This record gives sequence, structure tokens and C-alpha cells, in this order.
Amino acid sequence: MYRTHEAGTLRAAHVDEQVTLAGWVARRRDHGGVEFIDLRDASGVVQVVFREGEVAEAAHALRNEYCVRITGTVQARPEGNENPELATGAVEIVADELTVLSVSAPLPLPIDDNVEVGDDIRHRYRYLDLRRTGPAAAMRLRSEANRIARELLHELKFTEIETPTLTRSTPEGARDFLVPVRLKPGAWYALPQSPQLFKQLLMVAGMERYYQIARCYRDEDFRADRQPEFTQLDIEASFVTEDDIIALGEKIVRALWRELAGFEIPGPIRRLTWHDAMNRYGSDKPDLRFDLEITELTGYLSGTEFRVFAQAIETGGYVGAVVMPGGASQTRKQLDGWQDWAKARGARGLAYVVLDADTGEARGPVAKNLSEAHLAGLADAVGAKPGDAVFFAAGPKRVDAQELLGAARLEIGRRCELIDENAWSFLWIVDAPMFGETDEGWTSLHHPFTSPNADWAQKFQDDPGAALAYAYDIVCNGNEIGGGSIRIHSAEMQRRVFTTLGITDDEAADKFGFLLDAFQYGPPPHGGIAFGWDRICALLTGEDSIREVIAFSKSGGGHDPLTGAPTPITPEQRKEAGVDAVFEKKTETAEA
Amino acid sequence: MYRTHEAGTLRAAHVDEQVTLAGWVARRRDHGGVEFIDLRDASGVVQVVFREGEVAEAAHALRNEYCVRITGTVQARPEGNENPELATGAVEIVADELTVLSVSAPLPLPIDDNVEVGDDIRHRYRYLDLRRTGPAAAMRLRSEANRIARELLHELKFTEIETPTLTRSTPEGARDFLVPVRLKPGAWYALPQSPQLFKQLLMVAGMERYYQIARCYRDEDFRADRQPEFTQLDIEASFVTEDDIIALGEKIVRALWRELAGFEIPGPIRRLTWHDAMNRYGSDKPDLRFDLEITELTGYLSGTEFRVFAQAIETGGYVGAVVMPGGASQTRKQLDGWQDWAKARGARGLAYVVLDADTGEARGPVAKNLSEAHLAGLADAVGAKPGDAVFFAAGPKRVDAQELLGAARLEIGRRCELIDENAWSFLWIVDAPMFGETDEGWTSLHHPFTSPNADWAQKFQDDPGAALAYAYDIVCNGNEIGGGSIRIHSAEMQRRVFTTLGITDDEAADKFGFLLDAFQYGPPPHGGIAFGWDRICALLTGEDSIREVIAFSKSGGGHDPLTGAPTPITPEQRKEAGVDAVFEKKTETAEA
Repeated sequence: MYRTHEAGTLRAAHVDEQVTLAGWVARRRDHGGVEFIDLRDASGVVQVVFREGEVAEAAHALRNEYCVRITGTVQARPEGNENPELATGAVEIVADELTVLSVSAPLPLPIDDNVEVGDDIRHRYRYLDLRRTGPAAAMRLRSEANRIARELLHELKFTEIETPTLTRSTPEGARDFLVPVRLKPGAWYALPQSPQLFKQLLMVAGMERYYQIARCYRDEDFRADRQPEFTQLDIEASFVTEDDIIALGEKIVRALWRELAGFEIPGPIRRLTWHDAMNRYGSDKPDLRFDLEITELTGYLSGTEFRVFAQAIETGGYVGAVVMPGGASQTRKQLDGWQDWAKARGARGLAYVVLDADTGEARGPVAKNLSEAHLAGLADAVGAKPGDAVFFAAGPKRVDAQELLGAARLEIGRRCELIDENAWSFLWIVDAPMFGETDEGWTSLHHPFTSPNADWAQKFQDDPGAALAYAYDIVCNGNEIGGGSIRIHSAEMQRRVFTTLGITDDEAADKFGFLLDAFQYGPPPHGGIAFGWDRICALLTGEDSIREVIAFSKSGGGHDPLTGAPTPITPEQRKEAGVDAVFEKKTETAEA
Repeated sequence: MYRTHEAGTLRAAHVDEQVTLAGWVARRRDHGGVEFIDLRDASGVVQVVFREGEVAEAAHALRNEYCVRITGTVQARPEGNENPELATGAVEIVADELTVLSVSAPLPLPIDDNVEVGDDIRHRYRYLDLRRTGPAAAMRLRSEANRIARELLHELKFTEIETPTLTRSTPEGARDFLVPVRLKPGAWYALPQSPQLFKQLLMVAGMERYYQIARCYRDEDFRADRQPEFTQLDIEASFVTEDDIIALGEKIVRALWRELAGFEIPGPIRRLTWHDAMNRYGSDKPDLRFDLEITELTGYLSGTEFRVFAQAIETGGYVGAVVMPGGASQTRKQLDGWQDWAKARGARGLAYVVLDADTGEARGPVAKNLSEAHLAGLADAVGAKPGDAVFFAAGPKRVDAQELLGAARLEIGRRCELIDENAWSFLWIVDAPMFGETDEGWTSLHHPFTSPNADWAQKFQDDPGAALAYAYDIVCNGNEIGGGSIRIHSAEMQRRVFTTLGITDDEAADKFGFLLDAFQYGPPPHGGIAFGWDRICALLTGEDSIREVIAFSKSGGGHDPLTGAPTPITPEQRKEAGVDAVFEKKTETAEA
């Protein structure tokens, strides 16, 4: 037996007990022949004393992170030596036996929560990083989040069902990871971007309530917070409306924040239409920890002679503004900094005026281009006060102008410290558009299985740009933490959507004919939601990066700093996997 | 709102309530203008009556598996019309509203538990198959199994941790599935055969108690019961002995069988050494629902002139036998059938004698080759009675002879109906050999991280064939349902194992250098177990095939009969994924 107790559980009540402990040497100190170590295991830390003799000599040879077993007697610490910071601080173990279970080489990073260590080295030696209190607690929190969500879903009679991860390539907006199939040379599996099609099949199957904490895969260009594999809490139910799924989603989020963040989400969580969110906050995932709104000025500024604004207005675009409270006191350099900030986002710049703190007079490059009348009413139009700055954006409504103002709003929130870092702000975004327009035609804003809402069910194809969907996202502090929709359960309606998207019958049949086939056999109305589990756990942990709640993550580029994956394969592996084989149609027919 | 109640929950207590239900038309009957349907949802079935008028006319047009919503009043069924077989059999719903939510084309398979449907068609239309009671119940049982195991492990303070599935190719006995990496052309991820290396890293990380219901991947030649992706309940703990893991494994298995099979496993589960299992039952996963044992005759038959036996004995091999009770009454054709059976298994045949039911005299092809003395004592030596048959096997001990006898033992059990199909028999196989011998040298019987037991820790390299490991498997009714080991936590010992296996330092560093690196930093003693979750759920469901407890499984050859995966990829996909790129070493150095 390696231990009788866990180190972090020992208290004054254990005094005089003989205990055996196992763990790591967190620190060793030597006081005139008496050796002290802090012994750490997963439960915490306790002080161990080696008073004299051989055992003290052996202890003297211990180094940080040696793995040891000790046997000794629990004693109250001498008066005045208690450590109230430590749960075990009232006691220490007087050891009479010491076994070194394994030794440690000098460490590439200190196992010390108070020392900042670079991300590269932490992830390269993640097995040491996780010995630190914070990273280990993040893993445990995630495990608890899983438990809380699952218990709730089991109570609500949801069935946990695993769906395949070696499946068929389907176009859901990102590239698939592909897997060559040795037994069918020339054919490839795809790793799923989500269990979307399978969970819809499970609804056709009458399972009615499905969930899964599912691994998903997207071969995208990884940004800081994108991993090639990620996890979602995936949910689908039959005979439900949008309100049912929203209520379920709230239950889950509320339970998580109650139990893991000690925060009772005031309910019900507010809802904002997608158009309201864009119009008021310039974002489909606005951070509502602060109130600042953007203002549309397209009407107010109609007739302006300022070329930039006039052009936007004349071409059916948008002009808007956002106020930076106190922004008039910025230096010229700070104001120029905003131009760089905007350019880094791909904009041409960020037009602005500042309102004199005393007179309220508008100044700055844009001011001289606006008429007196426009300037006179500006502060009222945008809700600005003397001493504020007003930033403008003009251009195509959503993507260019509103999103620039939304980003500026966030940046203002940060620079002006308008964001309460201890606050939690949740909202639902509802009534999202079904389609977005690209040079190649209409695309799904969510995915092609999203149902139009009741108003648009029969006519979405007549005005795709205006059509609204039963689609909803849940946003926390400016992060989209979940999203879903009511799905189309009619093959006829699904075909109309495909037609609108420019997907031919043949393409549809080729790509997800199996789903359309299934819809022939009495599919139930159904809908669902998927929560971004990595992001939710990161928020609950108070971490910015999802890498902190993933045991072994990839760096940008998909490189695993610990194992060195991915690696080249041998010519034999390549041959055996059938990577270069040409697919024989015959094979498929024979097996299908 | 689609429904106020679930169909299967309605009882006499609901009489006179107005209810709205949604589900599928399981059956429609027409009795003189009155329409009856069985309405099925996930909760069960209830009878709905459409008495007259428009609603009855509309109901007349319903067909099987239309998805409908009805509103009506719960009524007690007319006396004598109750259906005690149905949970809702005391009531029926008199409907006054009917909405067809979706229609169904004629079905390719009947949604009827009493009709046998071929596996091919069931899996092709799995979304219809799962509407049947049995298949749906199998999914729900699996979900419950997950819940039970997780609750127990959470109680025991295990942390659920997800490990990567896009990782590095490591040799664990089977081929890896490979994934080309677009962002690092020429480099590939491998899908993990198990989380083995990561769970060991988590122990080095001090997580102490880990579990995961993990998806695993093996590119093997799929037999009936092999899937390219499968699931294991994966567990690892630190500061544990073999007994600790065995006790934990028993807790899990006991909870599962108690809650899901209504069976209290008598405890503790018996243990058999690997050598005893092979010697007594000719199998490392013996089915102990029946007692029949095999008998070694190598000593008894020493000096025999029968060439087949003599050659085995002289070359250091093995001769043994298994008794078929009452086997003497088999026809010549039946006895010949055993030869075919043996040949189908790759053996040359199955030597036998039959013992005359009256005189006990030994007859048959082998009898005339054995001496009178050997024949006279044979029945006693093998524990046979007059009327029995005795089957022999001779050759190399384990793989040829004992395994043939073990297979014959099982076949005898089946043919003689010695197996109680309602019984559950559990056992642990312990003290497995560390190594097996092949033409190319020693191989790991479990995996190369398995620790030798205390007796062999220092000397396994001196006699690898005799060395025993801290390795254990749990067997249920002849199925290995789980297995694990205490791992090596010493880099020095790990290197001795690699040397024994003929793995050079360079190969070891190349393949799992990261694990050896981790072992430099005070790794704790640790061990674990992995349960074959698909098999366990199949056993609990009473199904022979694991496909019955997998929502969407592959057929032999890895073909998905529902989606048609795998499929050819386009030249563009191929190019984009970097399938044909040559790996540039430079890239690795830059990123490592």
C-alpha cells in the first residue's frame, strides 16, 4: 500500500495518528540538521519533518519533484509555527521512514503557481505544468462541468449517444480532415465537423432526446484560439420549439455558473434579435458587460457633402458612430493609434471628431467636412457629451461598417475600463438571417438544415436576404458559447433551401442523400443546440485561452509541442494505407 | 407546443384530461368508420380513437410511420377492451384534432419487434431500425451504463480528462489510421489506438485519478466484431497496486450488472493465473459458465509410439485432451464434422477416441495407435466415463495445442448445452507473461509499458519467456471485457524492456521519447485498466454483436451502409490536404 491518507486532508484531528503518504517533494528546507519538506499530492500539501538520524540524512538528499513515500506520526505544529494559509497548516508529520519512489532531473520549469512561465515551455512540458495548482484545477473544473451538464440532461431523460468520427465528407463551411482507408484503397473517411447529420438522423430514429460531449474536427487556419480538434456539448430534441431549446440551454448554463462560478444567472436571460444586436452593438455576440451602443447616422447625415459618408449613403450603405466617453482628452498620438488599430483590422481608418470638453465644439479631421447643421446636432444624435470622442464608420452595412463600430465599441470598453471584469453578462441572439450574400450567391449563415421561422417558411426563397431563421446563439461576455436552430424536417423545404443555396439535386443527393432519404419516413419536428465546451470551461476557469482547459493542446499550425505530432510517415505506411491508390468504382458498388 | 404528455405515460388516473400528443403512427385500424391508431413516441404506445366526422376521415388517410400530433380526451377503454400487455392499456384517447407533422413513404423494413429483419437492411436504414423497441432500448442502456460508471468514478474522485485524437503514430500492435496535415505538408497525425501514453503522462502530471470514455481507432482487418473506431472506458491511477485496480474494476462491473442486468456479482471475483487458465481451459479468457477442463497428457503419454504425439513430446511440445460428455454416441458424420471444424480453425484435424458406452473400450482412429497401457488408463487420466469422446491436440504448447483444446472445449459446451445462457461468470486472469516469442524475437503480450511483477523486476531480461507481469484481464462469459496493468515508472526499467523487445534507444526516442522524457521528472507508480465498452454494453443488452450497441456502425471492410463512407476525394481535396507533399525537415525544426 502506497498511502493511508492523502496529504492535503490531514488536520488537527489526526494528531498522534501514524500515517503513510505518497507524493512529490514541493520544497525542501534544512534547519540545523532537521529536514523539512512540503509533500504535495493531488489533494494538497503537508509539511513533513525528518528530525534526526538516517532518515534525516536520506531526506537531505531529496530534491524538488522527487516522488516519495513517507511514514510518520501526525503532530500539532509547535505553537506559533502554524500556517493558516495552508489547509493542513495546524499539523506536520514527523517522519521515521522515507522511500524514494522515483527521482527527478532538474526541472525545465518551476512547479510554482507564483512564477510566470512562457506558454511554449508550459505546453512542451505539460506534464509538469499540470502539477501546478492552477492548471490542475482547470482540468478538475472541466471534469465537474461535464458531470453537471450530464446529470441535468440525464434527469431530463436525454440519452447520451456516441456518433461516428470516421464518416463521410460533408460540406459544413470548413475543410474536413481526411483519413485514407486501407481496406478500400482510394476511398477516404472524413472526421466530422460536428455530429449534425447524425443527431438529425437520431431524431428521425425517434430517440427524441440526444446529447453527447462530442469531439469535432475542423481543418482551419488555426488562430490563437482554434484547435484542430475541439469539443462541443451537442444536444438535439424532437417535438420542440425554439423556446424549449432556449429554456433547456438556460438550465444548463445556469447550473454550470451556479456550481462552478458561484454565480446565479438572473433569469430569464434577455433576448436580442440578430438585427438589434448588429444595429445597437455592431456584433452578433455583443459584450453587454457595458452599455455603450453604436448609432446609425445614415438618415441624419443624408445630404452630406463629405465624400466618404455620401458615397456610402448613395450606394445603399450605412454610416454610423460610436462614442468614446472622455475621448476628447486623447493625445494626437492616441488618436492616430486608432487609425493603426482600424487598419490592422483591415479597415481604411477610423474617422472621428472630438467634442471640446468646455465648449462641446466638434473638432478633428471629419469636423471640417461636415455641415454646421450636421455638426450642431451630432452630439445629440449620437448621445455624446462635451469631452467625448465620436468614431465613425461608413460602407456596406454589416460586414464593413457595423462590425468596425462593434470592434471599436469593444476597444473603447477596454481602454476606458468600462468592462467589469467580475461581471457575467448573458444573452440570446435570436431571429438570425437564414442567408448571407457572397459573390457566388447565397450561403447559409448557420447551416443548410436551419429552418426558416414561421413567417418565412413559405417565402424565404423570394427574398433570401431578409428571411429569418429559427436560429439562436447564446453569448457570454462577448463570447458565443453556444448556438443552434430548429431544423428543417421537410424534404420539400430542404430542397428549396438547397435550391436557394445553388446546391443542385445531384450535389445534394451526393453529399447528404442519406439525410434526405431519411426525411421520407415521417421525420419529427426537431431542433438543438451545441455548446462550445472548451470556451465555456475557459470562461468558468477565468482563462482567456481554451488551451488552458485542454489537457494536451496544439499550438498554432496544429503542432503538438509535447509529442511532436504530426510527423512524416514511412513509404511502407503510405503504401499500406493506400494513400496513392486510385478508387475503383466497382468496389463501392459491390459493397453498397 | 407539440405535446402536453408523453404517450406511454398515460394511465387510468388521466381519464377525462385533455391531452396533446405527438409521435408516430405505429398501426391504424378501421372498424366501421371509427379509426384507431397506435400512437408511438419514445415513452411507449397509446391507442387513439377517431370516432367520426372530419377528424376520422383525416385519420383514415394516415399510414404507418406518419408523424402526427393529436389532441383529445383520455377515456377509460370500454370494459373488456383493456389491453393488459400495454402499460397504457387501460385507456385510449378520443381525438378531436389531428395534425400530420410529416408523412412517410412505404417502409423498407417493418417497425415491428416481432419481425426478423436482415442486418444489412437494418443498418442501411438504421434510423428506422432504431424506432423499434429493442434497438432503441440498447441505445438507452448504453447511456445508462455511461452514467453508472461515471457516477461511481466521480464519487471516487476520478477526474474525467479528454486526451487528443489527432496525435503521433506509435506502435501498439495494430496499424494506425493516418490523417494528412494541410498546414504541415508531408506530415501526418495518427488517430490513437488508445489513450495509453497520454494517461501515463497525466499520472506524471500528478492528476492521480483519471478516466475517460474514449474513442479509439485501429486499422485492422475487421472481423464481425471489430469496428475501425471503438470505445473504451479508460482508467489510470497513481500510487496503486494491482489489487487496487482490480478492486476498482470490480466495483464498476458490479455496479453495471446490478443496475442494468439485475445481477449481483458474488464477490470477490475469482482470480486465475494466466498459466492456470491456459492449462485448465486452453484459453486466456475462459468461459466458466461450465466446468469442463482440458488435461495435459504430455507426461502420461511419454514413450508413446504414436508419431503425432511422440513428435510433439520429443520436441518439447504438449499433448492434451478434452472430454466430450456423451460424445461416443456421435455418428461418424458428426465425428468427421469435428475434423472440418478443426481445419476451419487452421488445425490439421482433431484426433479422438470414443469410449464404448457399455464396456468403456476406447475405439476410433487414435485408439489403434496407442499402447494397451496408455488406453487402459486414459479414461482416468482425462476424467472420462464410458460413453464419452476424448479429443486430443498435440504440438507447440500454447498457440497450437492448448488453444485448439480450448476452442474444442467451448464447442463441446455449446453442442452439449453445458452453458447456462442465463448465467454470468466473471473472473480475473492475473500473472500474465510479459513477453511472447516470435520469429523476430520477443514481443510484449500486453504493451511495452507493462511492469514486471516484483519477482521479475530485476531479472525479466534473463528469462523473458518465463517473466510475469502485473497484468490483468477481466473476463465475462468467455469475453475479455477489460484489461490493464501496473505500468513501468522507471526510465531505467523501461529501457531494459525496450532492449528485450529489440527496440533501440533511437527507435524508442523517436517513437515515445516524450514519455521517456517525462519519466525523468519523478513519475509516480501507476497503473490502470481499460474496459471494452462496446462489448460490455452488448453483453448487458444480451446481444452477440457490438453493432447492436453502436448507433451507426460500419460493416466488415469499414463501409458505412448508411452514409456510404468512405468515399473518393476530389483532386482539389487531395491537393489541399497536402497528401502528396514531401515533408521538409526544416519545417519541423522551426516549429519544434
